[in-house]
Amino acid sequence: MKTLILKRGEERRLRVGHLWVFSNEVDVQRTPLKDFAPGEAAVVMDDGGRCLGTAYVNPASLICARLVSRRENDPLNADMLKKRVDRALALRQALFDTPHYRLCFGEGDMLPGLVVDRYGDTLVAQITTAGMDVQTDAVVAALVEATGATGVLLRNDTASRELEGLPREVRVAYGSVPETTEISENGCTFTVPLTAGQKTGWFYDQRDNRAFAARFAKGQDVLDVFCYVGSFGATAARAGAASVTLVDASLPAVELAVENVKANGRAYGPGGVDDADGLEGDAFEAMAELRREGRRFGLVCLDPPAFIKRRKDAKQGLTAYQRANELALDLVADGGVFVTCSCSQHLDREELRRVLTHAAAKRKMQAQIIAQGHQGADHPVHPAMAETDYLKSFTARIFRA
Amino acid sequence: MKTLILKRGEERRLRVGHLWVFSNEVDVQRTPLKDFAPGEAAVVMDDGGRCLGTAYVNPASLICARLVSRRENDPLNADMLKKRVDRALALRQALFDTPHYRLCFGEGDMLPGLVVDRYGDTLVAQITTAGMDVQTDAVVAALVEATGATGVLLRNDTASRELEGLPREVRVAYGSVPETTEISENGCTFTVPLTAGQKTGWFYDQRDNRAFAARFAKGQDVLDVFCYVGSFGATAARAGAASVTLVDASLPAVELAVENVKANGRAYGPGGVDDADGLEGDAFEAMAELRREGRRFGLVCLDPPAFIKRRKDAKQGLTAYQRANELALDLVADGGVFVTCSCSQHLDREELRRVLTHAAAKRKMQAQIIAQGHQGADHPVHPAMAETDYLKSFTARIFRA
Repeated sequence: MKTLILKRGEERRLRVGHLWVFSNEVDVQRTPLKDFAPGEAAVVMDDGGRCLGTAYVNPASLICARLVSRRENDPLNADMLKKRVDRALALRQALFDTPHYRLCFGEGDMLPGLVVDRYGDTLVAQITTAGMDVQTDAVVAALVEATGATGVLLRNDTASRELEGLPREVRVAYGSVPETTEISENGCTFTVPLTAGQKTGWFYDQRDNRAFAARFAKGQDVLDVFCYVGSFGATAARAGAASVTLVDASLPAVELAVENVKANGRAYGPGGVDDADGLEGDAFEAMAELRREGRRFGLVCLDPPAFIKRRKDAKQGLTAYQRANELALDLVADGGVFVTCSCSQHLDREELRRVLTHAAAKRKMQAQIIAQGHQGADHPVHPAMAETDYLKSFTARIFRA
Repeated sequence: MKTLILKRGEERRLRVGHLWVFSNEVDVQRTPLKDFAPGEAAVVMDDGGRCLGTAYVNPASLICARLVSRRENDPLNADMLKKRVDRALALRQALFDTPHYRLCFGEGDMLPGLVVDRYGDTLVAQITTAGMDVQTDAVVAALVEATGATGVLLRNDTASRELEGLPREVRVAYGSVPETTEISENGCTFTVPLTAGQKTGWFYDQRDNRAFAARFAKGQDVLDVFCYVGSFGATAARAGAASVTLVDASLPAVELAVENVKANGRAYGPGGVDDADGLEGDAFEAMAELRREGRRFGLVCLDPPAFIKRRKDAKQGLTAYQRANELALDLVADGGVFVTCSCSQHLDREELRRVLTHAAAKRKMQAQIIAQGHQGADHPVHPAMAETDYLKSFTARIFRA
């Protein structure tokens, strides 16, 4: 195995647990990156020759190496993958009654470059780095062995693969994969699109936040903005919402959202929502239109896509969060509950709190934060890597002053 | 009503929602603080004479005024107290099945200077400011009217009262109050000391964090450090812990903790803990002793008192958190779960995460954060006041490398 030597002082972040090496941190005089093949294993050392662990390397990427172990000569291979997948599975099995969860969450599960969502017997995986990509067969084998899955879909169509010099593709890597499937979450049932859905099909990360919001849904008119397939709205319907209004830019998403709300509303029993109002279109425009109509909702859930994808989008993205939060606040009834979320890694929790504070001040409303949400336990955070901690939400009661 | 005028620019924090005025922000040339009686109402204005709201004033305190309303001439009185208490109660009734919760949480419920815990028919209140203290009779009346309580205990023995020039006392302000009571939380039953307990008797703020930790308790040896009356340990016992070890400096607390663990262990059924190991003494020494004995636990809960009470204690307090976390980590079994908490307002979430990260790195362990905890929803956060957001915790799986 080759060695990758860091410049003096560049080992500090790794010593406290971080897993990434950036290309400008490597002593390329002693260990030229161009000598490595994409995905090749390497022992990483500080400038004094002390071992920091074993990594896989990609000379073409800004993140040129990712540690997979603190040991020397301990490369990513079939054995390690099997152990890590088993360890990840044990956590989910301890937490969830049904096999519907994020099974592997990259660095948070010490599996850099691998994300896997489980839908019962079907797994949807995303491989985002060259070092994990060269292990594709071993990954699929480890997943199938651990779970007994009958189908594995590779949704290798993320933009991040291009940064690693990898092709974008979607393919069935094992068995067969249905177009849609049913999952159970928080006592609700959802139809989820697997092959044509967004990302890996379902956003398990909001599970706990949906459950908390639904505690305020009974008898209320509920608005679910950026609803995708209606997870917040349908969880509210199951809890006895009086009506659910769903907004999304994607027509197939809104249609499925309406179905999911109806199914869970019916399951609530007599008095449950058996119809839902699906609005296809730009969420900002839809909220402005609802405001013109004078509509108010007892529960408003605002779960936008990442408005800040790259750091350079921060200013523009912040403005979008501010606008969306102000528009949404206008639609909250006096004493109602507002859920605001951000999955932008470059907008931290403190900034989202400020967005809420300023929006409320601008509207002369009083907000009372009753819950601070995070990604669920099946999206574990690596304590030394703030990059793995991306989802934040606030649930607040809103009073019109 | 008198007017309190701020110096130029000092209105900014209030404009975005903060409620406190510090004495150095007042234009004492125009509105001398010494003209106000402790607890007197005042309209607060910026230097241009624009109204910022109505406050109560204490000329003797560093926080010399606290806003109670954004309106002009809207002082704290019996009517306002009644409305605010009703609003606070509505939230708790929506959230909890039994009448056991923090009913009023100061600024988070727009009731600056008032904290109330509810134990069924008994209320334990803490009044911490002169402005709230002059309303004591109206507070008690509003509480009794809203809840039908048969007893109200005033635990007015906090150090913060001295900063307000108020006497420290404990007295029954209404009806009669038992020495101990029973509460229900997360499906567990606890005996709580009311007259002789710490602070208001029970720490409802950790409710959700106890429930989450208990999901990992079944069949495990559990360690509850700084256990007080055993809330983490007893919740774990109810979930099927194999054994529970409890550590606290207070002998009466440890004795009650053992009783709480036994009661909930028996309720779990056959196989539940019917004995518990209570260790009275310094938690640091007790953890070091358990380490010498080679003990390991599948679940370790570390819930220390605030090591940083004032900002000037920050450095020393941080060292104490670091030491406690390292000692506790040594006692976690491979693959076990560790809950680390801080209720120090002057240690922020990011710093506690770093404490965990550095402790794990020092011990060459790998930590995987599976939950980030906060104070419960009955301790609402005022979005513009970071001071109201004090409790933070991390629950992590620990792997020995």
